[in-house]
Amino acid sequence: MYLTQALKRAMQVNGQGVATHDHGRQRTWAECAGRVAKMAGALQALGIHDGERAAILALNSDRYFEYFYAVPWAGGVFVPVNTRLAPPEIAYWLNDSGSRVLFIDDAFLGAWKVLDGQLETVEHVIYLGDGATPEGTLNYEEILAAAAPAEDALRGYDDIAGIFYTGGTTGKSKGVMLSHRNLVCNSLNVIPSFNFKPGLRWLHAAPMFHIADGLSVFGVTMVVGEHYFIPAFTPEASLEALEKHRITTGLFVPTMVNMLVHHPGVEKVDLSHLETIAYGASPMPESVIMRAMEVIPDCRFHHAYGQTECAPLVSQCGPEYHVVDGPNAGRFKSAGKAVLGVEVRIFDADDNEVPRGTVGEICVRGPNVMLGYWNKPEETAAALRNGWMHSGDGGYMDEEGFIYVVDRVKDMIISGGENIYSAEVEDAVHQHPAVAECAVIGIPDDKWGEAVHAVVRLKDGENLTETDLIEHCHTLIAGFKCPRSVAFRDDAMPLSGAGKILKTELRKPYWEGHDKQVN
Amino acid sequence: MYLTQALKRAMQVNGQGVATHDHGRQRTWAECAGRVAKMAGALQALGIHDGERAAILALNSDRYFEYFYAVPWAGGVFVPVNTRLAPPEIAYWLNDSGSRVLFIDDAFLGAWKVLDGQLETVEHVIYLGDGATPEGTLNYEEILAAAAPAEDALRGYDDIAGIFYTGGTTGKSKGVMLSHRNLVCNSLNVIPSFNFKPGLRWLHAAPMFHIADGLSVFGVTMVVGEHYFIPAFTPEASLEALEKHRITTGLFVPTMVNMLVHHPGVEKVDLSHLETIAYGASPMPESVIMRAMEVIPDCRFHHAYGQTECAPLVSQCGPEYHVVDGPNAGRFKSAGKAVLGVEVRIFDADDNEVPRGTVGEICVRGPNVMLGYWNKPEETAAALRNGWMHSGDGGYMDEEGFIYVVDRVKDMIISGGENIYSAEVEDAVHQHPAVAECAVIGIPDDKWGEAVHAVVRLKDGENLTETDLIEHCHTLIAGFKCPRSVAFRDDAMPLSGAGKILKTELRKPYWEGHDKQVN
Repeated sequence: MYLTQALKRAMQVNGQGVATHDHGRQRTWAECAGRVAKMAGALQALGIHDGERAAILALNSDRYFEYFYAVPWAGGVFVPVNTRLAPPEIAYWLNDSGSRVLFIDDAFLGAWKVLDGQLETVEHVIYLGDGATPEGTLNYEEILAAAAPAEDALRGYDDIAGIFYTGGTTGKSKGVMLSHRNLVCNSLNVIPSFNFKPGLRWLHAAPMFHIADGLSVFGVTMVVGEHYFIPAFTPEASLEALEKHRITTGLFVPTMVNMLVHHPGVEKVDLSHLETIAYGASPMPESVIMRAMEVIPDCRFHHAYGQTECAPLVSQCGPEYHVVDGPNAGRFKSAGKAVLGVEVRIFDADDNEVPRGTVGEICVRGPNVMLGYWNKPEETAAALRNGWMHSGDGGYMDEEGFIYVVDRVKDMIISGGENIYSAEVEDAVHQHPAVAECAVIGIPDDKWGEAVHAVVRLKDGENLTETDLIEHCHTLIAGFKCPRSVAFRDDAMPLSGAGKILKTELRKPYWEGHDKQVN
Repeated sequence: MYLTQALKRAMQVNGQGVATHDHGRQRTWAECAGRVAKMAGALQALGIHDGERAAILALNSDRYFEYFYAVPWAGGVFVPVNTRLAPPEIAYWLNDSGSRVLFIDDAFLGAWKVLDGQLETVEHVIYLGDGATPEGTLNYEEILAAAAPAEDALRGYDDIAGIFYTGGTTGKSKGVMLSHRNLVCNSLNVIPSFNFKPGLRWLHAAPMFHIADGLSVFGVTMVVGEHYFIPAFTPEASLEALEKHRITTGLFVPTMVNMLVHHPGVEKVDLSHLETIAYGASPMPESVIMRAMEVIPDCRFHHAYGQTECAPLVSQCGPEYHVVDGPNAGRFKSAGKAVLGVEVRIFDADDNEVPRGTVGEICVRGPNVMLGYWNKPEETAAALRNGWMHSGDGGYMDEEGFIYVVDRVKDMIISGGENIYSAEVEDAVHQHPAVAECAVIGIPDDKWGEAVHAVVRLKDGENLTETDLIEHCHTLIAGFKCPRSVAFRDDAMPLSGAGKILKTELRKPYWEGHDKQVN
């Protein structure tokens, strides 16, 4: 049970089939596996073996894909770095993980130069781009061409395969250690859950550093599908690639789905070959998924719920629940049910299972649950206490096993002693037709502790007053949950590298000088 | 990663759905899991915990299904006993495994009484039937009703889940130790390979003691399908159950498929709901699978290849290759390609990979490969040498990764220095329209070492001479492969409990007084 097995099998059963396609550069599985063995040889010569770390800071590409196989083939551990970090955060991740090698592309040469002298462990920098090799770096293609192919190191089972950092700020960021077993078992859960089939065509549009796209690197290879790449998500580039390569399958976070399905001219793009779209990583506004079901009516939508610590898939809500009529209408608002290899229970603060329908912490057990946090034994013990991963997400399970995520525990607003789930308020705000984007946060309030505050961007050409929007909410949810104040903004929301709205950024100006931690 | 997780998940996500249905006795997943927890409590009280063995000798039933979950829930190891064994063989299996508990049904009370005084370790016998409780046994329903539900012992990963014996004769029989990981990983390979879906309806017609049906016990539960039972395969009972319960999915060995699709009146049975049939465990004559594709034209056929030591699935050849026209025509004759979690290579006698197209030994690696043979460290080391399971099957792989099994190494006939694969000769014999069943074996020959000999049963009312049949073969295969002699018989072939033709029995009369081992 090890990641490179899938690559070798793909070479055996479909050696001449398409493995990767990146802007016209297409390679077969035989070519891809040959390149991975050679890059592994090059990495071993640079000291990557026996669990040594090799990090990557780059946009999506076919070489990023090869990296995910070359590092374990050499015997090393991959460390994909978030592309939205500030330089001090990048330095923290690289130093904390003790990465000896850094893969970098043109987009991050600037950030790397800023870090001169701050990287304590990086000995070699490998340039992934196609331009002239920058000073101080090794050229990816040159060292690959010069290397002898390595034998597969055959690390597997409980050996660490990769370290995926969560969060972004120096003090808080934790490296999630995922083993070969974690990632292989996740793929084996993903494949039947999303109906992955041999020959599927996957677009890597979500950032590859993030485990949400990572599941597709390994899962798509296990079923011997084809990998297509765009460097980063934009609605234009995604729609173009979806149509051109007749993509069948992909994963998008809700903000990306929102941008795709509201993009001007989307109706004219041929998306008829899209069979399966999974979405997740943050709450999906109902109006967005309803619009998506209109725009791509034959596509099967899956609401996926997970977290990095679970490698990541925990539960999913399939296309049979993405319907507007009948007994299953609206069920897509749930995170679905535990996927086949995963156990989910809802615990109270003492780790006792709560009755169905009662909110508690969503906890997870299974071969997909992380080994722990890198160099953080106390945080590991706390997160994994009693053998269960404590997700930090509040939620409940209904009588039929559907899981409803009410909020990140940290995004819950406590106002006048009442728990208010920001996701529920956001859903109400989003139902106003003038709203393009919104985020609901708690801000300091002398009387209530916290007050509900909505940050809203309107659609182009729309007008709306604070009073109108608050009144709109009063028609949908209880009065104590409605925003007390609204801030309208013209700019897009600040997003994390994974495309989640960064509520920490939105909270900051309100909480300066107060005690509460904002993230 | 442990077997009972699937049962608990089925209870969580579909508690009121059908779990088991046995001749009108229907139970939900909530009821089934509740009964399993209570039977586990009863078993613990009888000494089954911490790896203690509990054997079963019974025909198929819903209680047999519960046994497969109650034993690991208690912390024990299941030992399903072949229903075709002679009493001394049963005694050997029970004593060799050190089983403390034996589950038995009405069909085997006679065999058990014969063994009085010969069972060295069995302390308790549990009666599975619905009749009066036989003396010296405990009644299954009574001890279940009286027991307190046990906590799941949570054995998993590399803990032994079960011991499955291969072969039948005392001296040769080996207990294959399969771990929880082996069986869970096999299920995760089976599910996408055979397109198992939630809600499928599976008929347990093949004997449940055999790993070929065992894959369905665990795999069907993982996707939360429904389990239907007939006590043992007959074409009549199978066709009746397939129609009545609108079965969607099943597994049959080739001899069963042969009996089903040639059964008088099969055309009148409604089999339109049959979506998937897997077949395997012995070679499938081409004429039989062609007939099956005629009789159930909308069914998706999968040729499965595996062995007990691999838990069992190794490769499969799917419905896209069960076609008579186009580039994939006839590909169903192959064993297909390695399934997604399994590595297959063809090795020579020194464990070097042979070129594509060259016959060698089929070898397997992956998380599905057994822990070893129970109490047989030397045989274990030989079978698992260099980290690969040596299957004992001769075969080759073509350029596209298709695996062709040419014969069991032990069924290969060596005549005049030529290797002759009995399966190839059987295929030629079977193409004669008068032939109902055939088996080809090597018999002693002073000149050639071994001579090719065919044992044949003709269809009712057919006539055929030895000369005619040999001439028929000459039109299809090389002269040195054709039978030198033919024995016609009226009786059905002797079958193993798994429905394979027992060539050992057929060889015996010819080899008495000779050196060669016949099995």
